[in-house]
Amino acid sequence: MSLTPDQLAEIEAARANPRQTLRATSPGMEAHLYRAHPVLDHGFIRVIDYMGDDSAIVQAARVSYGAGTKHVSNDEGLIRYLMRHWHSTPFEMCEVKLHVKLPVFVARQWIRHRTANVNEYSARYSILDREFYIPEPAQLAAQSTVNNQGRGAVLEGAEAARVLETLKRDAASSYDNYAQMLGQEGPDGEPQQGLARELARMNLPMNIYTQWYWKTDLHNLFHFLRLRADAHAQYEIRVYADAIAATVKDWVPLAFAAFEDYRMGGTTLSAKAIAVLKRRLKGETVSQEDSGMSKGEWREFEGIWG
Amino acid sequence: MSLTPDQLAEIEAARANPRQTLRATSPGMEAHLYRAHPVLDHGFIRVIDYMGDDSAIVQAARVSYGAGTKHVSNDEGLIRYLMRHWHSTPFEMCEVKLHVKLPVFVARQWIRHRTANVNEYSARYSILDREFYIPEPAQLAAQSTVNNQGRGAVLEGAEAARVLETLKRDAASSYDNYAQMLGQEGPDGEPQQGLARELARMNLPMNIYTQWYWKTDLHNLFHFLRLRADAHAQYEIRVYADAIAATVKDWVPLAFAAFEDYRMGGTTLSAKAIAVLKRRLKGETVSQEDSGMSKGEWREFEGIWG
Amino acid sequence: MSLTPDQLAEIEAARANPRQTLRATSPGMEAHLYRAHPVLDHGFIRVIDYMGDDSAIVQAARVSYGAGTKHVSNDEGLIRYLMRHWHSTPFEMCEVKLHVKLPVFVARQWIRHRTANVNEYSARYSILDREFYIPEPAQLAAQSTVNNQGRGAVLEGAEAARVLETLKRDAASSYDNYAQMLGQEGPDGEPQQGLARELARMNLPMNIYTQWYWKTDLHNLFHFLRLRADAHAQYEIRVYADAIAATVKDWVPLAFAAFEDYRMGGTTLSAKAIAVLKRRLKGETVSQEDSGMSKGEWREFEGIWG
Amino acid sequence: MSLTPDQLAEIEAARANPRQTLRATSPGMEAHLYRAHPVLDHGFIRVIDYMGDDSAIVQAARVSYGAGTKHVSNDEGLIRYLMRHWHSTPFEMCEVKLHVKLPVFVARQWIRHRTANVNEYSARYSILDREFYIPEPAQLAAQSTVNNQGRGAVLEGAEAARVLETLKRDAASSYDNYAQMLGQEGPDGEPQQGLARELARMNLPMNIYTQWYWKTDLHNLFHFLRLRADAHAQYEIRVYADAIAATVKDWVPLAFAAFEDYRMGGTTLSAKAIAVLKRRLKGETVSQEDSGMSKGEWREFEGIWG
Repeated sequence: MSLTPDQLAEIEAARANPRQTLRATSPGMEAHLYRAHPVLDHGFIRVIDYMGDDSAIVQAARVSYGAGTKHVSNDEGLIRYLMRHWHSTPFEMCEVKLHVKLPVFVARQWIRHRTANVNEYSARYSILDREFYIPEPAQLAAQSTVNNQGRGAVLEGAEAARVLETLKRDAASSYDNYAQMLGQEGPDGEPQQGLARELARMNLPMNIYTQWYWKTDLHNLFHFLRLRADAHAQYEIRVYADAIAATVKDWVPLAFAAFEDYRMGGTTLSAKAIAVLKRRLKGETVSQEDSGMSKGEWREFEGIWG
Repeated sequence: MSLTPDQLAEIEAARANPRQTLRATSPGMEAHLYRAHPVLDHGFIRVIDYMGDDSAIVQAARVSYGAGTKHVSNDEGLIRYLMRHWHSTPFEMCEVKLHVKLPVFVARQWIRHRTANVNEYSARYSILDREFYIPEPAQLAAQSTVNNQGRGAVLEGAEAARVLETLKRDAASSYDNYAQMLGQEGPDGEPQQGLARELARMNLPMNIYTQWYWKTDLHNLFHFLRLRADAHAQYEIRVYADAIAATVKDWVPLAFAAFEDYRMGGTTLSAKAIAVLKRRLKGETVSQEDSGMSKGEWREFEGIWG
Repeated sequence: MSLTPDQLAEIEAARANPRQTLRATSPGMEAHLYRAHPVLDHGFIRVIDYMGDDSAIVQAARVSYGAGTKHVSNDEGLIRYLMRHWHSTPFEMCEVKLHVKLPVFVARQWIRHRTANVNEYSARYSILDREFYIPEPAQLAAQSTVNNQGRGAVLEGAEAARVLETLKRDAASSYDNYAQMLGQEGPDGEPQQGLARELARMNLPMNIYTQWYWKTDLHNLFHFLRLRADAHAQYEIRVYADAIAATVKDWVPLAFAAFEDYRMGGTTLSAKAIAVLKRRLKGETVSQEDSGMSKGEWREFEGIWG
Repeated sequence: MSLTPDQLAEIEAARANPRQTLRATSPGMEAHLYRAHPVLDHGFIRVIDYMGDDSAIVQAARVSYGAGTKHVSNDEGLIRYLMRHWHSTPFEMCEVKLHVKLPVFVARQWIRHRTANVNEYSARYSILDREFYIPEPAQLAAQSTVNNQGRGAVLEGAEAARVLETLKRDAASSYDNYAQMLGQEGPDGEPQQGLARELARMNLPMNIYTQWYWKTDLHNLFHFLRLRADAHAQYEIRVYADAIAATVKDWVPLAFAAFEDYRMGGTTLSAKAIAVLKRRLKGETVSQEDSGMSKGEWREFEGIWG
C-alpha cells in the first residue's frame, strides 16, 4: 500500500474531528473509519461510512418505535433465527460504504455482485498511477491439473523467476508507453498532441490498480463474503473479502457470528446427501455407486463427511 | 397520527442520547431523527437513520481520500453537473432509512419502487391496530371525467355524507369482525379456538394502516419523489412524498436544489416538441394539426407552453 | 376460476395460431401456453411467454456459438454442477412471463420478491370484479399455539360456520358499497357524481382478487419457489407456487430436477449442526444441552435428523 | 470479426431449423437471430433469443387475456403514451438475449448497467484468443482540450503512426508472454509447469477481446441505448449501442419509434431553462448572465436552442 503523505494527512484530518449524532453507532466500526487496511502489494480497503448496528437489525425485524430489545441475549437469539430462516430483509437495513484499491482483474470479478453502488476512478477522465499487482513468490502457482479454474503447486526456480520478470517488465513497459502516448512530447522531444486518455488506457494490463467507492447492505455483503472468502475463490479477491470480514466482525458482532455459524462454517446438503447421511447414521456403509451422486459430488461430500 | 405515550417516550429516549461519531453528519437531518411527521389522519414518516451528506456525493464522484472540496460553490456546481448529466451513481452513495405508517392501498403503490429495502409489520404474526384512513371532506372527490385515473370535483351534500358514513361504518364493522374471529370467545361468550391471524387479516379493507421500515438511496429516493410528489400522483401518496421531500431538503440542501431545478421543476421535450418550439421561437404559429403530436400530447404541451 | 366465454375464446384463439420461430422452444412449455391453471376458488396462473430451455442454460454457461452440447447426460451433469455450486447466472438466462389472478393479501406477500417485472390491473383506472377468496372449510384453521405465524387445528362446528358466514357477508356488503359509491345513482335513484375509483377501492377487503402480469428469470423463480412452496409458507401462496412448479418441471426438466434435489429436498446445516452429526456418526449420543444449539434450533434439527 | 468455419457452421445450423411455437414472434427479429453483426475490428453482437413484441407491451399494460388491441394505430398511441409518461413496466415485459464480443475496456463500461444478466467467457477457466482492438486511424484522437473525458482532433503523421505501432507491438508481445507463461515448455524447450490461467490473464492489456451472453429487458435496454448511443459516449461502446439499436428497431418498431422521439431525439429542460425559453418566446433576449445558469449549462443550452 502506498498512500502519499497528503492522503495520509487527509485521513488523519477526517479522524481528528468527531461530531455528535443521534444515530446508532458501532464503537467497533468507528475505530476502523477512514483507516486503510493494506491488501496485496498496493491495495487497501477502508471504511468510509456505515449505517446501523446489531440492534438496528432487531429493530427493523420488529418495526419498532425505539431501539429494539433491552437484552443482548434476546437480540442474539432473534438474529440467529433470522439468519437460519433466510429472513434477509432485516440485514438489508445495515449499510456500509468502502473505499477500495484493487487490481483491475479483481475489480472485474467483484463488479459481478450487482446489488451495490459503485463509483470508480475514471481512466477516461484521469491518468492512472503506475501501480501494478505483482504476486508474492508464494502465490505464483501453476495451473491446477484437477480443477480447471484453480491453482496447483507453487512455481519454483527458473520458471518462477521468468514469470515474475515477465510480469514486471510488461507492466513497466506498457506504462511507459501509456505515459508516452498521453504526453505532449514525442520520443525525440518534439511536441505532440497526446492521445485521448479514454484510448490510451486500453494499453494497460489488467494487473494495474484502480479504485472505487463501493456501498452495499449487510445482506448482500454477507453473500459477497460467502462466495469470495470461500476457499474456492481466487486468492487475490479472497484477501479483500477477508479484510472486509474483519471489519464486519467489529461492526455487527452478533450478525457476524450467526453468519459464520450458518454460512461460512455451514454446508448445504442435497436430498441425496441427506439420504446417505441417514443411512450412515443407522450404521450402513454407503459407496458412491449406490449414493445416487456423481463422482464429483461424492468427492465433495467426502471432503466434509469422510 | 396517534402515538401512545410509551411510543413517544421511546422516541424521546432515542433523541436524548447523542453519541460521538467520525462519520459525515448532516445537522439538518439530525433535527429530524426519530421525530414523527404526521401524514393523513393516522400516518407518519420519521427518519430512523441516514448515511452521507452533500459532500459525500462530491467525495464519491471524485473517489477522494478526504472530505471533498473545500468550497461549497465547487460542490454545488459539481452536484448540478451530475444531476444535469444523469450521473446517478454519486447520489446512490447517500442512504436513508424511514419508519412509515400508511394505509395499505398506499403501501401497494409505494412497494412498486423495487430498489429499496423493506420490513413491514406482519399481520401473519401480529394483530393490526384499529386505525383506518378516512379522507377529509375536501379530499372526497368524484371520478374525473377526463382522466381515467384521476379525481374530479369534490363531492358535496348528501353524497359526500353517505360516502363518509359508508367508509366509517365498513371500517368499524370489518374490524369488529376481525377481532371477533381472532378472539377466544364466541359471540355468546362461549370459548372458541380463534381464527389464524394470517387468515383473519383478509377481512380488513385496504384503508387500514400498516407500517414499515423503508430504506433507499438518494438517487432512487429522488426517482420516487419525482413520480409520487408529482401533481398526477394520487393525493394520498403525494402527501407522504411531500413530507419526505421536506426532510431531504434539510439533509442534502445542494442535491435537493439541483433535483428541484432539473427534475421537479423541469420537463422533458420530445423531438417533435423541440421542433415546434424552434418554429415558435422563429415567430411561426404552430397548430396541433401540423405539430405531428396527438391531441393528448398537444394538450400536455400547451399546459406548459401555452 | 371463472373466465368469461370471451376470455376463453381469446385464449383458444391465441393457441390456435402456431408460428414459425428459430428460437429455442420447450415442447413441454408450449403445451401450457395461455391455458389457465386454476388456483384457489377464483384464481389461476397461466404462462404467457417463456425464453430458453435446459440447453439455453448450458449454452450460456459455455458462452457458446451453437446450441450447447449434443449429449443430454452432459447437460444434466453441468446443470447439477451449476446448481450445487450456486452458479446462478446461467439460470438467469431463462425467463418466464405469467398472468396470475390472486387475492390481494397473497399479492402483498408475492410482490416482496423484487427481482421481477410486474404490471398489475389498476383499480385507479378500472373497476374490480366481485370476486373474493373464501377458504374451503378444510383451510379454516385456528391460530397455531406454537408458531406465531402459522396455523393450528381446523376450525369446526359453529365457529367454522360463523367465520365463513362473516367472510362472505363482509365481502358482499363491502362490494355493494364499493359499487354504490362508484355509481351514478344514489340509493333512492337520485343522480350522484360517483366517487373516484382510486378512493372507492380502499373500502374493499384484502381477499378480493386482483391480477397481474409477472415476469422473472429462472434463478429468481427458483428462489421464489423455494420460499413459497415451502411447508412454512402460507397455504394460499403455496398453492400458487405449486402450480407454477408444475409448469417449470415441464419447461426445464433437468434444471427442475436439480432444483428439487439441491433446494426443495435439501437442507442447510450450521457449523454446530455439522459438529453434532459428526459426533453422531461416531456413535456418540448428543443432547440439545451439549449441542450448542438453542431449543428452537434443536427442534428444527431433530425434525430432519430424529 | 473473425468467426471460424466451425462457428459459422454452428450459426447456420441453428438458423436452418425452424420450429413451431405459440408464443408471440417478431418477424423482424427472427431475421437477425444468431447472425453476427460486426462491430469494431473483431467484435460482434448477435441476438440469441427474444421475448415479446410491440403488442406484448400493450397486452401487459392492459393485463389482457388475449393479444391486445386489434388496431395498430391504437397500439402506437398507447405505446407513445406509456413512453411519454415514464410508465416503464410494460416495456420490461419484453426481453432480449445477446451474444457480444467486445474489448475488455468496453466491457468494463457496459457492466455498469446492473439490471441485466451476464455470463462472461471465463479467463480463469479458458485461454483467451489472440485478438486485440486496434483503432482505425480515423478513431485515433487526441485528448480533448475542452472536455476532460472526450476526444479532440484526429492524430496525424508520425504521432499517429507511433501510437498504432505501440498498440500493436504491446498487444503482440503481451500475448506472446501470456502464452509462454501458460505453456508446458520454457523458452529453451525445457518442460515447465505453466502458470495458472487465473494469474496469467492479468498480463493482458484491456484492448483484448472478451465475450459474454447479456440479457436484459426492453426498458433497461432503452436506458442503455440512451446513455451509450449518445454523442458523449465513447466511440468504442457507441458502435455497439448503434448495432443493437438497429436490431431493436426491427424487433419492436413502434416502441423504438417512441423511444427515438421521446428519448434519443428529445431533451430535458430545467426550471431555469423553461423560464429562459418562455422569455424568449415573448421576444425577450436573454443572456447567460441573467439566465441563472452557469457558463457550462448555458453552453449546453445554446447547443440546442442557439
